[in-house]
Amino acid sequence: MDKKARVGIFGATGAVGKEIIKVLFDRNFPIKELRLFASEKSVGKKVETPVGKISLENANTADYSKLDVAFFAIGGGWPKENAPRATKAGCVVIDNSSTFRYDKDVPLVVPQINANSIGKSKLIANPNCTTAIAALPLFEIYKKYGLKKVIISTYQATSGAGSEGMDELLSQTKNYLAGKKVENNVFAYPIPFNLIPQIDVFLENSYTKEEMKVVWETRKIFGNEKLSVSCTSVRIPTLRVHSESITVETEKKVKAADVKKLLSNTKGIILRDEIIIGNDKNNKDNPKKSIYPMPLTATGKYDIEVGRIRQNLIFGEYGIDFFVAGDQLLRGAALNAVEIAEFVVKERFK
Amino acid sequence: MDKKARVGIFGATGAVGKEIIKVLFDRNFPIKELRLFASEKSVGKKVETPVGKISLENANTADYSKLDVAFFAIGGGWPKENAPRATKAGCVVIDNSSTFRYDKDVPLVVPQINANSIGKSKLIANPNCTTAIAALPLFEIYKKYGLKKVIISTYQATSGAGSEGMDELLSQTKNYLAGKKVENNVFAYPIPFNLIPQIDVFLENSYTKEEMKVVWETRKIFGNEKLSVSCTSVRIPTLRVHSESITVETEKKVKAADVKKLLSNTKGIILRDEIIIGNDKNNKDNPKKSIYPMPLTATGKYDIEVGRIRQNLIFGEYGIDFFVAGDQLLRGAALNAVEIAEFVVKERFK
Repeated sequence: MDKKARVGIFGATGAVGKEIIKVLFDRNFPIKELRLFASEKSVGKKVETPVGKISLENANTADYSKLDVAFFAIGGGWPKENAPRATKAGCVVIDNSSTFRYDKDVPLVVPQINANSIGKSKLIANPNCTTAIAALPLFEIYKKYGLKKVIISTYQATSGAGSEGMDELLSQTKNYLAGKKVENNVFAYPIPFNLIPQIDVFLENSYTKEEMKVVWETRKIFGNEKLSVSCTSVRIPTLRVHSESITVETEKKVKAADVKKLLSNTKGIILRDEIIIGNDKNNKDNPKKSIYPMPLTATGKYDIEVGRIRQNLIFGEYGIDFFVAGDQLLRGAALNAVEIAEFVVKERFK
Repeated sequence: MDKKARVGIFGATGAVGKEIIKVLFDRNFPIKELRLFASEKSVGKKVETPVGKISLENANTADYSKLDVAFFAIGGGWPKENAPRATKAGCVVIDNSSTFRYDKDVPLVVPQINANSIGKSKLIANPNCTTAIAALPLFEIYKKYGLKKVIISTYQATSGAGSEGMDELLSQTKNYLAGKKVENNVFAYPIPFNLIPQIDVFLENSYTKEEMKVVWETRKIFGNEKLSVSCTSVRIPTLRVHSESITVETEKKVKAADVKKLLSNTKGIILRDEIIIGNDKNNKDNPKKSIYPMPLTATGKYDIEVGRIRQNLIFGEYGIDFFVAGDQLLRGAALNAVEIAEFVVKERFK
């Protein structure tokens, strides 16, 4: 095998699939051949890519022996059926769904944190987007100060529910503003100018699956099954970028200024934390505005934004509050998946 | 003095002032005479009310000896100058600004919690809207189980910045959807499909004043200067209703089911907490949908909605997570102010 890979993207027309195509070319991923797969009804349609138009093939009948790396961005029962076929044929699968994330034998990877867990595995799970975004700053704090408690409240974008989610927000906001009936198909309730404190189904403990994914996956990625994490996941009327308000209690004493320095030197993070004390936010005479993470600035960016870093009022010297915003289609999905593939190609395709 | 009051509303054309007019009539407040005051430029304009059109008078030149109760809904330096004039003339002032909230001699009141602190005071402060909404469920838990820690992340509506905030969200969302330039005057950054993790100015400890108001005011209302509270305040693109994700650690053991029962019997709270475990949120065959607090349902309501009540994963038997949504123009402002006035009239005007 040479250092270039035959790559297949499954679910190439979805929100994440489209981003994977962009990220592969943007990062000069060593592609020998690129093939795009989708549901049967899309077969034959052409997708514009930086290497010309590519015809969509049927995801259900792919010959995996012709592929080195397959990105799976299809949900439901599909990965369960197709991942074994792919890996048996020698293809490395990077799966974006939650299907295999909690399997003991399947590595769940944020490359900056636990690329070493990939080993020889042919099936690698990409984490939940909310988890992946919080994981980067949390892991830095975890390594240096230890984490006794992590309490998260999220502000999640509609594209977390796929491009249909974004479309519903846009079309129904138009209806709202025109005084027309506002409908909801993707979301449980109308989303324009509203929020919905439920993402994914409810579990027995009254948390949603989305909330528990953050707990389970953070533990697995950090390799610490006892890490204390809790989460409240909320859908808000934004298009892209998941934001998270995070409070941590640390094991060692921690200073907000040191955390700022630490995170400003962390690959994958951009510090957006310049606050102007006492300044009126509406004061137009002051040219320098306070800076913090926002969907407005994090959209389309690889780096996740971290800011509002401050000493927590309750945990004092042992606690930090911060706010993150990350493009969940990139760091939370496509970018992370491509970074995993880069690692695999570099390690194995020599 | 008889049991009916001569009432003045100062800032009658603002978001809160308008709600005070509505709430007074909706609750059959014992009005002998209603007068409306605004800035000089509005003088003479007429406002439609349930008792006919009322001409706006100049707020700066009011004769307070002709009023029994004055609702102040004007910000900036105005209350500082005018409250002493009013109280000296014998008028009771209920001030919606933060001007007097932290003065030792001025009661800060959520009537269901600490009406007894009003005493003989002629000046009473109405709390910050985020504080007032969280205070009702928190106080019930506090009384029964004690509170060791309260950690809050907020989802605050644009009308928290007055009707101009709402107008900016609506007009700029239209611009966004039409592909036009999105501007921001009320908010520090464009708000459509964005969020802004800053409300009010930053203080020395890197918290915003809005966040510290929640800390300071909850302590004062509960009469416990040592209560451990921290808050992250975030503006989101909604019109009305502030929502809050709250995690508490209690002093005594607490069960989620008991908190549900407790809050379902609390005046001013409506429990919206019916979750369907494992049900697909998009399953249209299931007629019963999960129920939780949302701006969609809490808008225009007196009661604040509480739901998502569950045992916190970290604090276990000593912790509860819950989510609240309350119309901050009503419970967080106008309704609370009118309830204070009702108490004053009932106690004093005999």
